[in-house]
Amino acid sequence: MGDELILVDFWSSPFTARVRIALREKRLKFESVEEDLVSKVKSPLLLEMNPVHKQVPVLIHNGKPVCESTIIVQYIDEVWRDKAPLLPSDPYEKAHALFWADYIDRKIYSTAKLVWTSTGEVQETAKKDIIAYFKVLESELGEKSFFGGNMFGFVDVSLIPFTNRFYTLEKCGNFSMADECPKLVSWAKRCMERESVSKSLPDPCKVYDFVMGLNKKRQSQQQ
Amino acid sequence: MGDELILVDFWSSPFTARVRIALREKRLKFESVEEDLVSKVKSPLLLEMNPVHKQVPVLIHNGKPVCESTIIVQYIDEVWRDKAPLLPSDPYEKAHALFWADYIDRKIYSTAKLVWTSTGEVQETAKKDIIAYFKVLESELGEKSFFGGNMFGFVDVSLIPFTNRFYTLEKCGNFSMADECPKLVSWAKRCMERESVSKSLPDPCKVYDFVMGLNKKRQSQQQ
Repeated sequence: MGDELILVDFWSSPFTARVRIALREKRLKFESVEEDLVSKVKSPLLLEMNPVHKQVPVLIHNGKPVCESTIIVQYIDEVWRDKAPLLPSDPYEKAHALFWADYIDRKIYSTAKLVWTSTGEVQETAKKDIIAYFKVLESELGEKSFFGGNMFGFVDVSLIPFTNRFYTLEKCGNFSMADECPKLVSWAKRCMERESVSKSLPDPCKVYDFVMGLNKKRQSQQQ
Repeated sequence: MGDELILVDFWSSPFTARVRIALREKRLKFESVEEDLVSKVKSPLLLEMNPVHKQVPVLIHNGKPVCESTIIVQYIDEVWRDKAPLLPSDPYEKAHALFWADYIDRKIYSTAKLVWTSTGEVQETAKKDIIAYFKVLESELGEKSFFGGNMFGFVDVSLIPFTNRFYTLEKCGNFSMADECPKLVSWAKRCMERESVSKSLPDPCKVYDFVMGLNKKRQSQQQ
């Protein structure tokens, strides 16, 4: 086997968390190399391995880099197909899972970030939008245990890291996710029962403090 | 085979063109149902088949919809894997192709659109940006015939429809793609020798007239 897996990582990033979860679902050992995203000086390793986007996560498999979290999770699932498959093998169901992962990629983070970085009308609009997007996802989930049915899979891996920011969203947006999207909150709890997930997501309060710290830094730079 | 393939289509969309090209590479017969995107009244078929994004293209395969051009092309390639494979079968090479398709999805259309819909400083910045993105793609192409090597493949399908707008970009941005990115222009000519491509892309002058017509309409609505 002798596979060497290095993850260019950042503890609070929901995108790197997806990769940590997928690696743990497959029971793969990996070395996490923490990138200092706060200092904004990118490491030589990151610049060498992802020269186009210069972003985490990068998974370096036997010296070769794979970039972009959704593509990395697909890669992991294909290479280690025998253990805990994440994507369905049926092409139609697979396309359906990819559609929802793409929906999450396009809608969730950019809108959620506006809730904790803006104020006034911009924040109010972002809050309404993010609740609407979560409700769309909740309706796709329906009565199923996980997005793909009975088994934890690709769409779950894509979305679960963002639930780690529910606390930040609720504190900044002054609303309750349990009131707005109770099924999604139950689904998140179900996912958190998996060691692959709970081990890969940081404490929500620690994330909140980190986000508030970044906000303060940004405000003082603007003054 | 008895496969029924209906494409919810729009003649000048680079995204629907990707699907037309992939279907023709696989020598599949399909019915194109033109969506009237200009009137902005979405058809009941589109609303039923893509209720989330309400956008073309949608490929309806034996009554079941697949949405989002990049996902549709992947779907076509998986279902009809035996003819003209588009994605490499090796997981690493596949991840590499998906990375560049994602780069194209994120960078090209939104920036190119700014070149033909804006003026002044915004247009100048967009022009610089789009040339920079094309140069990154040119450097990825290198000395290869196609993005994947000797064979026309997934990244070629993703990018080639946008070359159809080079004429519009050049006229609006007042520059020459042949001067800026000669290798990309040669690659585009090579792709156009394929019937799957030439048959799927409209006349660049017709596209230019269409884009200018939309601009005029927008301006008269703003006044």
